[in-house]
Amino acid sequence: MTEGGAEIERLVELMARLPGLGPRSARRAVLTMIKKRAQVMEPLARALADVAEHVRTCSVCGNVGTLEVCEICTAPKRDNGQICVVADVADLWAMERGRSFAGRYHVLGGMLSALDNIGPDELRIPDLVRRVEAGGISEIILALSATVDGQTTAHYIADQIEPLGVSVTSLAQGVPIGGELDYLDDGTISAALRARKAF
Amino acid sequence: MTEGGAEIERLVELMARLPGLGPRSARRAVLTMIKKRAQVMEPLARALADVAEHVRTCSVCGNVGTLEVCEICTAPKRDNGQICVVADVADLWAMERGRSFAGRYHVLGGMLSALDNIGPDELRIPDLVRRVEAGGISEIILALSATVDGQTTAHYIADQIEPLGVSVTSLAQGVPIGGELDYLDDGTISAALRARKAF
Repeated sequence: MTEGGAEIERLVELMARLPGLGPRSARRAVLTMIKKRAQVMEPLARALADVAEHVRTCSVCGNVGTLEVCEICTAPKRDNGQICVVADVADLWAMERGRSFAGRYHVLGGMLSALDNIGPDELRIPDLVRRVEAGGISEIILALSATVDGQTTAHYIADQIEPLGVSVTSLAQGVPIGGELDYLDDGTISAALRARKAF
Repeated sequence: MTEGGAEIERLVELMARLPGLGPRSARRAVLTMIKKRAQVMEPLARALADVAEHVRTCSVCGNVGTLEVCEICTAPKRDNGQICVVADVADLWAMERGRSFAGRYHVLGGMLSALDNIGPDELRIPDLVRRVEAGGISEIILALSATVDGQTTAHYIADQIEPLGVSVTSLAQGVPIGGELDYLDDGTISAALRARKAF
């Protein structure tokens, strides 16, 4: 026996699985949807169905989007010679909010981690090496969190890329030690990008 | 130009309209959905489409659900003689979580408010009077928040119902003064229900 019927209870349960929402806030969110059916629930249902049906990973950089190759990879005004390497799509979005970088990206899909048993082949590191080997790249900018895993990953990538004669830089120490890239304010990200140094 | 394409940006924007989510947590929620496509995004898209298509207001009590008459109104084991009057569906759900009430409900859809210009006809008060006039009701339990609007509404309803010879009670003062029903813990709701007194 559920208060609002099985369908509503199921929706509350699924909403509660999202980060930042618990059972109580999920219930409030669902009630808001039901009350604002035309303004919130129906557009949300359509948008979610749309994304669920069309979302895919960009075959070049690993960003998410609805195209085979994402809008950043195909944007004509961006610099092909610079690739910014990020661990995750959330970090790519954070870099874009900083509005200081106009090159291309490479999303690793995580960071090397001995504890979690994540090695180079679990990440998109071989793809990155192939992109560099294909030529036309002058600089790889490592935008990885200032954590142990982030710095391990950065060193590993630098060891792979430097023998190919391509310069490897990393974001300046403006990233707070122990901090997560996705939580930084846009100004700090811009400053760290401008002050990037040879790795 | 959006980071993940227009469809994803639109989904983030709509999610950010839900209570408890801002632009940043909406982005995190959407990224979680995309990463857990089969476990979270697709079931959520289906559940939301389901509710968006089928949700309706119970024609008897005003609860939300997917049936013409809701599961609480049709449950054979509940007492037809008691009607618990609540302002909102969230309050009905809060009462049900308390697991102490086994009668029927009546959802007003708000509270009388001179400031917001909400009078008896904007609420489902005439429907409540008709339910009582139809007979078989022995007690109306007012479960309204201990705020000025809640108590105004309670007095108004008592004035309508008492002449019909039906007893009107209200939740005991276990509800904190100025508190909102939806935020109470289940134990307090149970205690207040058990100690209800003549209004």
